[in-house]
Amino acid sequence: MKEQVHGGDIYRHPGMLDFSSNMNPLGTPSSVTEAAVKSLEQISHYPDIQCAALTEALADYEQVPREQIICGNGAADLIFSLVQAVRPKKALVQAPTFAEYAQALESVGAAVSYYDSACRDFRIDRGYLEMLEESPDMAFLCNPNNPTGFLIEPKVLGEIAEACEDRGILLVVDECFQDFIPDEEKHTLKPRLARNPCLFLLKAFTKRYAMAGLRLGYGLCSNKGLLEKMGRVTQPWNVSIPAQAAGVAALKERAYVREGRRVVAEELSLMKQEMAAAGLQVYDSQANYIFFRGPVDLREHCLKQGVLIRSCSNYPGLDSGYFRVAVRRHEENQVLLRALRLHPNLK
Amino acid sequence: MKEQVHGGDIYRHPGMLDFSSNMNPLGTPSSVTEAAVKSLEQISHYPDIQCAALTEALADYEQVPREQIICGNGAADLIFSLVQAVRPKKALVQAPTFAEYAQALESVGAAVSYYDSACRDFRIDRGYLEMLEESPDMAFLCNPNNPTGFLIEPKVLGEIAEACEDRGILLVVDECFQDFIPDEEKHTLKPRLARNPCLFLLKAFTKRYAMAGLRLGYGLCSNKGLLEKMGRVTQPWNVSIPAQAAGVAALKERAYVREGRRVVAEELSLMKQEMAAAGLQVYDSQANYIFFRGPVDLREHCLKQGVLIRSCSNYPGLDSGYFRVAVRRHEENQVLLRALRLHPNLK
Repeated sequence: MKEQVHGGDIYRHPGMLDFSSNMNPLGTPSSVTEAAVKSLEQISHYPDIQCAALTEALADYEQVPREQIICGNGAADLIFSLVQAVRPKKALVQAPTFAEYAQALESVGAAVSYYDSACRDFRIDRGYLEMLEESPDMAFLCNPNNPTGFLIEPKVLGEIAEACEDRGILLVVDECFQDFIPDEEKHTLKPRLARNPCLFLLKAFTKRYAMAGLRLGYGLCSNKGLLEKMGRVTQPWNVSIPAQAAGVAALKERAYVREGRRVVAEELSLMKQEMAAAGLQVYDSQANYIFFRGPVDLREHCLKQGVLIRSCSNYPGLDSGYFRVAVRRHEENQVLLRALRLHPNLK
Repeated sequence: MKEQVHGGDIYRHPGMLDFSSNMNPLGTPSSVTEAAVKSLEQISHYPDIQCAALTEALADYEQVPREQIICGNGAADLIFSLVQAVRPKKALVQAPTFAEYAQALESVGAAVSYYDSACRDFRIDRGYLEMLEESPDMAFLCNPNNPTGFLIEPKVLGEIAEACEDRGILLVVDECFQDFIPDEEKHTLKPRLARNPCLFLLKAFTKRYAMAGLRLGYGLCSNKGLLEKMGRVTQPWNVSIPAQAAGVAALKERAYVREGRRVVAEELSLMKQEMAAAGLQVYDSQANYIFFRGPVDLREHCLKQGVLIRSCSNYPGLDSGYFRVAVRRHEENQVLLRALRLHPNLK
């Protein structure tokens, strides 16, 4: 039986208001659900192994050539197929970060080194460049990082990308949460894609369109050989018919994405203030979730109030007392804030 | 771009009547589609990583303990995770058979030996036992086999299972098409599961309930360590919310499965007769598809008639002139037969 190391386990916590996974606060667009419903008429057929319609829509949305796009059964599927395709002996991962990078790396026996960001105020600094001198085969970064919501200084990130290219280190940057930051164009490494074959960008529909349950993610990479290798370690039909159809519909939802970003910006700022005022040690997240320190029993306390938050104590590099909550709609966030304030050590 | 080596590519052949993939001729049960539709209300959440409700329903359906069940994003997902968990150095596969076993094995660098069934009238005989003496780490069998529809003689299969257990060879038997044979209980290796840790049975919802587009398969195995290893090489959320919901609904469709089996038996017999009468060399399939030899241009001929059939020339061990067609409903099968008979070399 798989152990739950992530947020979002509403199945063992039915009826809770879920702040433990980080979706677009607007919820799934109705056009996405409708496209998925309509596609179900076709489910006696296999999915399109080329994801042709979806890839074409993505090429238009991302403004990258179709050949540089690979679709997966969620971004997590691509993390595993990437690692299984490359089979790195040595890899570099920051700590704390999303657990699946290390999980995938360990599944192929890679020796994983951790860049400890906890002792650097959770920032990626030039110390990361020094660790690249150990010449790992692969390095993972998450930008903004999960669970901190911290963005990497663009200048530092650029130097990291160049160092990786120079050394032939495959740099995987998970940009899944960039859809919620106000100045994505300053932070995405997309402009470097075409000329850097050592760069792989991870993107997901999961959070952008609040459709985690359908499983759809994609990767951008100009290294054709790598994408072919990923195809060889994966079944041909990994992206379901409803996921492909929902994806095509989702990409048309431009106003929805802008509105989600606006709501996140507004609520993020408000929540950070109110949580700090309640006595929590709040980190300055730029994403659609907030990382903070609080009383060690805060998750259990919140559960009693009908609210599920993410304890971050199982992230490498963190101990008990670290938490993460999603930024949701105003009224929902107020429910969370009330629940938090009811803790005897908070105000 | 992935190359299509399988049947079912309706995306490059729109509007064709598809005989190139083998689904339950009754089509997807409406209860399955309805359950999937209803589940879409929940897609802003992650799927249940434990597939708890589905696993419980499967334990009841298969009458095996929950701990012996693993769910996947289609049976093909499990083939890859099995091979990635075991990482065999040497493996044994029959030829011809479903291409994904060898594909998965090659993706981890396994040396694949082929048991050439083509020179033995496509049968598995005791020659297979001799090949087990080479001590592969893993052996794949498909029963009934795809594309031939041939079942393995139960006595021979029993000897193979025992030889594998004695030698510590992991035997993977794909029973995905057993739902359409009249005497499944004589052929399934399920009774051996509990006491044989070297046995893995593959099952799929794909064909049984005509729901290939949703992606849902499962495996049965009493080797807990192996199932845990498979979990470690796979993302936690590989089975989508609609697939899990559809699966639970599907397992209640007992009468549908019986009726599908009845239609297949009736039509299979009729089609084999009529295809032989038309001048084709028809093999005695026991499954919901028919393997045969015919004019090398038969697929192109059928496409002109609006019918998509599966050329088997890309199966290892086969050359041009081998084909496979699904057994569908009576009226549809008549369309196929008319199309076949229009070929100048057939009558």
